[in-house]
Amino acid sequence: MSAARAADRTPDSRSHAGLTIGEYLIQRLQEYGIGHIFGIPGDYVLSLYGMLEKSPIDVVGCTREDSAGFAADAYARIQGMGAICVTYCVGGLSVCNSIAGAYAEKSPVVMITGSPGLRERVNNPLLHHKVRDFRTQIEVFEKLCVAATELTDPIFAFREIDRVLDAAARFKRPVYIDIPRDMVHVVPHIGHAYRSAHPTFDQAAAEEAAREAADLLAAAERPLILAGIELHRFRLQDLMLELAESRNIPVAATVLAKSVVRENHPLYVGVYEGAVGNEATARFVDESDCILMLGCFMTDINLGGGTAKLDLSNSISVTSEELRIRRHHYHDVSLESFLRALHAFSFDVAERKIPESLKRRREPFRIEPDRAMGMSRMMARINDSLDERTIVIADIGDSLFAATELLIPGRTEFISPAYYTSMGFAVPASLGACVARPESRVVAICGDGAFQMTGMELSTVVRRGFSPIVIVVNNEGYGTERMLHPGDWKYNEIHSWKYHLLPQTLGGGTGYEVFTEGDFDAALKRAWDDRTGLSLIHVHVPVGDASQPLRRMAERLGSNV
Amino acid sequence: MSAARAADRTPDSRSHAGLTIGEYLIQRLQEYGIGHIFGIPGDYVLSLYGMLEKSPIDVVGCTREDSAGFAADAYARIQGMGAICVTYCVGGLSVCNSIAGAYAEKSPVVMITGSPGLRERVNNPLLHHKVRDFRTQIEVFEKLCVAATELTDPIFAFREIDRVLDAAARFKRPVYIDIPRDMVHVVPHIGHAYRSAHPTFDQAAAEEAAREAADLLAAAERPLILAGIELHRFRLQDLMLELAESRNIPVAATVLAKSVVRENHPLYVGVYEGAVGNEATARFVDESDCILMLGCFMTDINLGGGTAKLDLSNSISVTSEELRIRRHHYHDVSLESFLRALHAFSFDVAERKIPESLKRRREPFRIEPDRAMGMSRMMARINDSLDERTIVIADIGDSLFAATELLIPGRTEFISPAYYTSMGFAVPASLGACVARPESRVVAICGDGAFQMTGMELSTVVRRGFSPIVIVVNNEGYGTERMLHPGDWKYNEIHSWKYHLLPQTLGGGTGYEVFTEGDFDAALKRAWDDRTGLSLIHVHVPVGDASQPLRRMAERLGSNV
Repeated sequence: MSAARAADRTPDSRSHAGLTIGEYLIQRLQEYGIGHIFGIPGDYVLSLYGMLEKSPIDVVGCTREDSAGFAADAYARIQGMGAICVTYCVGGLSVCNSIAGAYAEKSPVVMITGSPGLRERVNNPLLHHKVRDFRTQIEVFEKLCVAATELTDPIFAFREIDRVLDAAARFKRPVYIDIPRDMVHVVPHIGHAYRSAHPTFDQAAAEEAAREAADLLAAAERPLILAGIELHRFRLQDLMLELAESRNIPVAATVLAKSVVRENHPLYVGVYEGAVGNEATARFVDESDCILMLGCFMTDINLGGGTAKLDLSNSISVTSEELRIRRHHYHDVSLESFLRALHAFSFDVAERKIPESLKRRREPFRIEPDRAMGMSRMMARINDSLDERTIVIADIGDSLFAATELLIPGRTEFISPAYYTSMGFAVPASLGACVARPESRVVAICGDGAFQMTGMELSTVVRRGFSPIVIVVNNEGYGTERMLHPGDWKYNEIHSWKYHLLPQTLGGGTGYEVFTEGDFDAALKRAWDDRTGLSLIHVHVPVGDASQPLRRMAERLGSNV
Repeated sequence: MSAARAADRTPDSRSHAGLTIGEYLIQRLQEYGIGHIFGIPGDYVLSLYGMLEKSPIDVVGCTREDSAGFAADAYARIQGMGAICVTYCVGGLSVCNSIAGAYAEKSPVVMITGSPGLRERVNNPLLHHKVRDFRTQIEVFEKLCVAATELTDPIFAFREIDRVLDAAARFKRPVYIDIPRDMVHVVPHIGHAYRSAHPTFDQAAAEEAAREAADLLAAAERPLILAGIELHRFRLQDLMLELAESRNIPVAATVLAKSVVRENHPLYVGVYEGAVGNEATARFVDESDCILMLGCFMTDINLGGGTAKLDLSNSISVTSEELRIRRHHYHDVSLESFLRALHAFSFDVAERKIPESLKRRREPFRIEPDRAMGMSRMMARINDSLDERTIVIADIGDSLFAATELLIPGRTEFISPAYYTSMGFAVPASLGACVARPESRVVAICGDGAFQMTGMELSTVVRRGFSPIVIVVNNEGYGTERMLHPGDWKYNEIHSWKYHLLPQTLGGGTGYEVFTEGDFDAALKRAWDDRTGLSLIHVHVPVGDASQPLRRMAERLGSNV
């Protein structure tokens, strides 16, 4: 059983007599497939760190807590669930942004934090790391997590751990667990058996909705499936593909869900981003007379800055949170039960011809060795090297927009915070990906602004001996903002580093400096063959260089600035 | 009038007809002495950035938002008020920890954030950067700030700006101002005149309390003033010194308030940290029969891990938040009004002889050129170079504990987050200090763990041409935690960087690698004479090296781990 599938299995329900609260938590995390925890120790969490270090879980020490959060997020996207462990407030409040991103994009990250012992809190003293009162940290994370608990009472501690981890697994959102440091070694003197939350779904509603959806699809002349990120989070890609293949329904994907369907699949018609994405794909989607949207977040970036023309009257949208057919709603139906019910019905769908222009095939890239490197052609060159064992991680800005034109052959091998769009995700995420799948070829693409935020997490990559290829695109500033807010603004300029020299400072890996297509081609070839350590490719691109998708996006979103 | 004093002046109360909301905010910030704003642009805040760039305020672009927060905190400590400007959620939620630290240690930082325009929020769309709903960010910062506002209504916008900035000035805590991007250029069609909040204090209570305090001090045989950080925040150092000098009362300081009194002052007896600080100082304080505590936070670190033996029955404690004499309380008395009333009374105090052992004088440091560098002797060497134009910034851990033994000759020239104790403060704070006082010699002392968190903010230091001396103490791990949780724990090890090579990557400054006292002496001399750019001194100290104060602290705090 893969670790990923382990996240879905019912945990061991034997009695847990004799375990301490810390031991129970560590055991339950493993039952969800968590083999690694990212974080930084601190005095309020040292006793738990000691316990973790003796457990089968590998603690991956990071340079900063927010980077640990991004790494755990990427790990969760690949592995099914991820975790971080940090100290009170100075650690915890440093991961707000990473956890918020996991919330927004449905990545189940368990945030574990130590806190002052209950004994120490008597008379409300000013203990170090305290902000306003002892509950400040949990009050913040209640806003950013789907469930949160403080393990202050041994009687309820195991049940609280169960409840909160269940919520992470069910809603695919981050959760918060706070262990006061004097509770870690406490053994609750109470019997405990795990009981799953057993959410009640309405099977009859699922079937009624599926029947209605089947009828609409059967009546349509130009049906289409729009695949969303929840198919990945709930591991329903195979089921969706069975449905599509058995009825021959074309499939598009949202940008957040890019690679949920392997992009060389014969039914695949590309990423739908409204008017800013590929125009032929947009036209094909907009011309559909029945769109089955499965697990899609319809966000502004997904929808190309609000340019998508999806017609509600023709669409069925099913997510873990709502089920809408045209303009009416069904309640208490899970995405999976709907999909299973729909697939079980016998119905035929009109065959819809996919135009040649949408057949995705890889064009061999012809380098022009002396030409200055630009984003679009860089992606075309990278495209040439991708295979099923590659994981591509794109940071925000043109690293994401240009990367939408990559043809990802594997499945779920493209990772980007395409909705929450927090800069600085890619490098720590590449650490998370290497930890989760050390055998894969991890390629991270990152702008210079984003790299300056979290790029030094390469320290941990070097320390662990991983060999990702990290591409830093240096256009001397915030390129997307230059497009969004034209003008000669100084605030978009950043200091230029000699990124390729960082391996020397870090004591490992190889740096490359690239100006032309010839340079890039040579560096990428060498990097691809090098599994001895980090490859850091510093690519100079001209200020003002931008991919077509970014130009279109800026045109749409810029009007609101 | 210095910028610092400007923070206290009554703002211009003329009518502000014709100003946009953004312009009014920028004008009011300047009236509080803010000449620089730290931050990173993002699309929801670009229109405000455009306005700032055209204003007299200098926008200091940083590499990361949390570093911008630390820089603004240090700037606020020096200048009287500081500010950051960041984008919605991905920017804002990245500064939670910096703002929390400013809250805990009473540093008035104005956090300004852009957010989606009100027009864009109709029908609650999934706009990028949104977490849960449009209010998530403000709900988080309501926990971390003393006042918060969203400028969603032109009618109230100016009054809200006034209210929130007043709160920052009055409580010396961070505040939050959120401007939806379509409100930046709106001109409120309503008359406005600034009216200060005019908090009502009880003058009669101030006088009664001061009378009682004067009687207690006059009756005491061994009186003492314990100086706290609020004397600095409310700029009452001179008034306190007048009181002490006119009555010949000895003065000790808490660790957070180190340097609030210049440490070569004849009445000064040292930093009081209970049993973990200087023993002679602790004995002298504990033997007092009347302690006047002025603006002290009595925190665990301040109090040496709870070892201080302050006797409530003998003490008077006055802060901006409470006034306690022995075990009863007065309400609505400000620290300043109490101090003025006390100073105005005529009373004599028994002369208390300060033992020779507490007379702080600088011992000339004798280097042993081949001896391996250690924290205590490094501080002794640094001590030799300090003058009145030096600002010393200590990060957390032994950088702080060992630095308590420095003798700071100026006033308010020692900056450290000694209560909240967030690692990674020193380097961004050195940027903030250089921006606030470019003529000063800024020396930052930072452990390797802390440096790995935020050290790359040196990028901005290099870009701006500042010349701080940054000392990175490399003991290959989290040294304080090794002391707190003894054992051979892997989690306390970190990857060793060649820190002295970073100037090459950053394209500016000079790096030094130091093993011995001779190396350090030579490097520090050269660095001190070099005002052309950054000096980065990488100091190897043996694993396990620790100052006496750290050893004592670990002994006390370690028992709770």
